[in-house]
Amino acid sequence: MQGYFDYNATTPLHPAARDAWLIASERHWHNASSLYREAATVKHLLDTARERLGEMLGSEPERIVFTSGATESNNAVVHLFAAKEGAVLSSSVEHPSLRTPLQRTLDHRVRFIRACSDTSLDREHFHQQVTEHNPVLVTIMAANNESGTLHPWQEAAKYCKERGVPFHCDASQWIGKMPAQALGQCDYVTGSGHKFGGPKGVGFLVMRDEQEALGFINGGPQEEGRRAGTENYPAIEAMITALEAVTQDLEITTAHQLKYRDAFAKNICREIAGVRLIGGDVARLWNTIMLVLPDHDNRKWLARLSQSGFAISTGSACSAGRDGSSIVLQALGASAEEMQRVIRISSGWETSESDWLALEIALLQVSKSFALKE
Amino acid sequence: MQGYFDYNATTPLHPAARDAWLIASERHWHNASSLYREAATVKHLLDTARERLGEMLGSEPERIVFTSGATESNNAVVHLFAAKEGAVLSSSVEHPSLRTPLQRTLDHRVRFIRACSDTSLDREHFHQQVTEHNPVLVTIMAANNESGTLHPWQEAAKYCKERGVPFHCDASQWIGKMPAQALGQCDYVTGSGHKFGGPKGVGFLVMRDEQEALGFINGGPQEEGRRAGTENYPAIEAMITALEAVTQDLEITTAHQLKYRDAFAKNICREIAGVRLIGGDVARLWNTIMLVLPDHDNRKWLARLSQSGFAISTGSACSAGRDGSSIVLQALGASAEEMQRVIRISSGWETSESDWLALEIALLQVSKSFALKE
Repeated sequence: MQGYFDYNATTPLHPAARDAWLIASERHWHNASSLYREAATVKHLLDTARERLGEMLGSEPERIVFTSGATESNNAVVHLFAAKEGAVLSSSVEHPSLRTPLQRTLDHRVRFIRACSDTSLDREHFHQQVTEHNPVLVTIMAANNESGTLHPWQEAAKYCKERGVPFHCDASQWIGKMPAQALGQCDYVTGSGHKFGGPKGVGFLVMRDEQEALGFINGGPQEEGRRAGTENYPAIEAMITALEAVTQDLEITTAHQLKYRDAFAKNICREIAGVRLIGGDVARLWNTIMLVLPDHDNRKWLARLSQSGFAISTGSACSAGRDGSSIVLQALGASAEEMQRVIRISSGWETSESDWLALEIALLQVSKSFALKE
Repeated sequence: MQGYFDYNATTPLHPAARDAWLIASERHWHNASSLYREAATVKHLLDTARERLGEMLGSEPERIVFTSGATESNNAVVHLFAAKEGAVLSSSVEHPSLRTPLQRTLDHRVRFIRACSDTSLDREHFHQQVTEHNPVLVTIMAANNESGTLHPWQEAAKYCKERGVPFHCDASQWIGKMPAQALGQCDYVTGSGHKFGGPKGVGFLVMRDEQEALGFINGGPQEEGRRAGTENYPAIEAMITALEAVTQDLEITTAHQLKYRDAFAKNICREIAGVRLIGGDVARLWNTIMLVLPDHDNRKWLARLSQSGFAISTGSACSAGRDGSSIVLQALGASAEEMQRVIRISSGWETSESDWLALEIALLQVSKSFALKE
């Protein structure tokens, strides 16, 4: 995937996931809810898949509900708490799949926690808001999709648990890139298959306990009555296989990738005057760099890089995004003009040092081509 | 798929669909909403897929919203009309993915249209209910999943259109088995990929027009803002490829399959005293037979047939089903005891005459094995 630097938007299907999907589609395509032998096998494999995922997330498997992806999971959480009275506290840099349903469904009941200028969470403001509003739900993402900034979700989960406040964590960008074992400590966790080498159209929601009803997509008794619809076992199997594959050597991946990325960032900041690295002072995912470039519309940069075979993005593919806006920069109070100059670079598990070097050269070339025209 | 007679629950993945999915996953896995060349290609292929589906359904492609399946589509329609005041009129034999959200969300605003004893729609009662309640929505499925009975949806759609009443048709069991060209005349149409050889986890909802908002799963701007979440292009491409494949020789398939099935039904009704064929007097899908057996719990029949390598089902995999209940028999006022004796047999496009004969022999053997024990 040389030249592909948009892993936070989506990832190529992992070969192990493809094989798992093919085998499942060939042999275990039967309806898991049916009553014959082959169906029972699918049901069994589905249970095993749930156990394997529970193992990785440090969660009882019974808490896991398979969904069509992170967007559905986030909408389902909002739907669940829409029925309860009281405020919902959210970070101000959540993905649109959480932010939009929050605003549409809960409207004036949502309170946003301020972001620090380094895009991390303003802890003091968070504690103050919890005390002031006694919320029915706190939702803070694990790692930001635009800047890669890591949020103190473990600390926040603990803080909420001590006060009896349910805590939801959208861990779509975290899972597969960072150790996931502690996520089971959150009451609710969102995950998405295609962010870590699994297929699109599949994800999950970890719920507080195995009894709690969900009630967003209703119908058949699948997923213990919490998510209706024929179980998509091939995609589920592929998702979990991908997660197992990408997290196998996570420590080594992290060490290497951090080195490549930081060398890239250092060189770019040195060579292109006026570049600003967002979240440069705080812990971030090993794969993400968000830059505010000194001049020219980000779409011009993207187009030229695309011509050279490099795929990067503006803020987020899921933001109202096509106009180049960025939720992170909005939260930091950036101007509209500044938002037109932001780019996001996100690598993957198999990105090599030479891939990063090639991107560096290409980015500097585009920068020079702009300078020449002036 | 010898011995597999549960196509109404799910279908094996069509080889053409598998190939389409593999190619898409290999070459066009990029995020369709991103801004580089490869992403634009995915966007273009997605538009083309939408056009191909529009062609088959007799609908403007812009009316089509891709979803995670029929269950989501049905829930989304209910959500859309939950916001509007007034009664919703529904057939009394809808799939749980429509019936359950209707009851949960609209509760006392739902009015059910009576079923005739042959499981078709009671037209007189339908007209009467429309006049009496002036509903904000009428929803009638195209073909029933348990009995295969065809409903007069074209007539109902016309009747509703003349009165300015929006009409929704869950065509999950119809599409792929019957000519679908006229479905575009309905205001809303639900379809499911895995019912006609496509992958699980993908389906669609045809909407009234291209402008109408949907607002069930919110977040990113995908599907023109009507269904958020990264576009699942590989599954969409596979679904549409499957539909093109299975409908290629639909007339020939229909003629052959009807002959095999009816011969089977005739022999079974002759050989097993007291068998009752549901919907035997009305038009049904060419693949479905619903039988009330003379005695013994249906699960016993299923288990013995499963041992002989045959996969059939009780009412529906999606009904509260595991306890053997049947929405169709409920609507016909059957007793609980009778519902424990129902089986559903549903064949597929590739089911052969000898497959049907083998099932006939197996069913008669099970019947005899019961008789011997008495």
